[in-house]
Amino acid sequence: MSASPLIEQLIQALKCLPGVGAKSAQRMAFNLLERNRDGALHLSRVLHDAMEHIRNCERCRTFTESTICHICDDPRRAESAQICIVESPQDVIAIEQTLQFKGRYFVLMGHLSPIDGIGPSELRLDVLQRRLEDEKIDEVILATNPTVEGEATAHYISQMCEKQGIAATRIAHGVPVGGELEYIDGNTLTHAFTGRRKF
Amino acid sequence: MSASPLIEQLIQALKCLPGVGAKSAQRMAFNLLERNRDGALHLSRVLHDAMEHIRNCERCRTFTESTICHICDDPRRAESAQICIVESPQDVIAIEQTLQFKGRYFVLMGHLSPIDGIGPSELRLDVLQRRLEDEKIDEVILATNPTVEGEATAHYISQMCEKQGIAATRIAHGVPVGGELEYIDGNTLTHAFTGRRKF
Repeated sequence: MSASPLIEQLIQALKCLPGVGAKSAQRMAFNLLERNRDGALHLSRVLHDAMEHIRNCERCRTFTESTICHICDDPRRAESAQICIVESPQDVIAIEQTLQFKGRYFVLMGHLSPIDGIGPSELRLDVLQRRLEDEKIDEVILATNPTVEGEATAHYISQMCEKQGIAATRIAHGVPVGGELEYIDGNTLTHAFTGRRKF
Repeated sequence: MSASPLIEQLIQALKCLPGVGAKSAQRMAFNLLERNRDGALHLSRVLHDAMEHIRNCERCRTFTESTICHICDDPRRAESAQICIVESPQDVIAIEQTLQFKGRYFVLMGHLSPIDGIGPSELRLDVLQRRLEDEKIDEVILATNPTVEGEATAHYISQMCEKQGIAATRIAHGVPVGGELEYIDGNTLTHAFTGRRKF
């Protein structure tokens, strides 16, 4: 060890950030010490506040510092009577950026994975069940990831919807816009063919 | 904006880290919230402590949370009567890792750059001058970067040493070990030729 103990601690602590190894952590530590102590102090405060105060929204389970997130709290969002099921809060951000969806969300914070001990109760599907019973919902849009676990999760939730007599739809899988057929995997191409629509 | 205000603040604050843009900051924020809240709280505390307590060593100007850094504080380090001049604390770490140098350092925290208003007083060459006068020093090793500013800084300090009658040496420039001549720039090759030694 050739840096001071506190600098070593800082370098070690920065390695908790995803994608940051020993070399990047060292660069970050010295960069902050040399050039941006105010920014680092601000980051320290915000990090603390965020970790202490951000919990899951009681209605849709996304991250928020309030009891109910700002999307669930928006009365205009109830009008569409649609609810979109996603795996993570980042998916909500991605969908919100398209400006296409005006309904509410339910964030699973994962997907069904029995091998990891993640079942319906870990995903709080009981909360979703209550929403399906209590709220006016016409359509459940299943926007879980197109992976084996995501598909299984979508299938499980579609059965919950069926019992309640609510229509469940799955987002389309196919060739990404701007993609070239040549480079698309066979599985996606099969989806693109079976899911073809009238032109 | 589609994340909650506090999450947006966290994403913005993470962008103060070097090499972290909007997308990486978002990934870091959610990764910490989902998987590593303890690590993030620890990082918050260490960041605060480091920014509040780490100052420059009174003797060599490197970063330390003590008045005198652990290298300056080590009596065995005085025995070699050598002092190595570097531009940044990272350079000290790099040199320490070679295990070759057993003397003390002086860290300039930059280089002479009149255009940016950085002169001898900003580099605290007055502190270095006092050390040259007070300490038993036989050799000053100039290990500033091989850039125009680094060379100018080395030249300036070599003149300070001359006035004190202390030998000043410059680290060797040449072909990096493991490098191939074909890919070395002409300037470095010129240095390698003029600096050749008996085999």
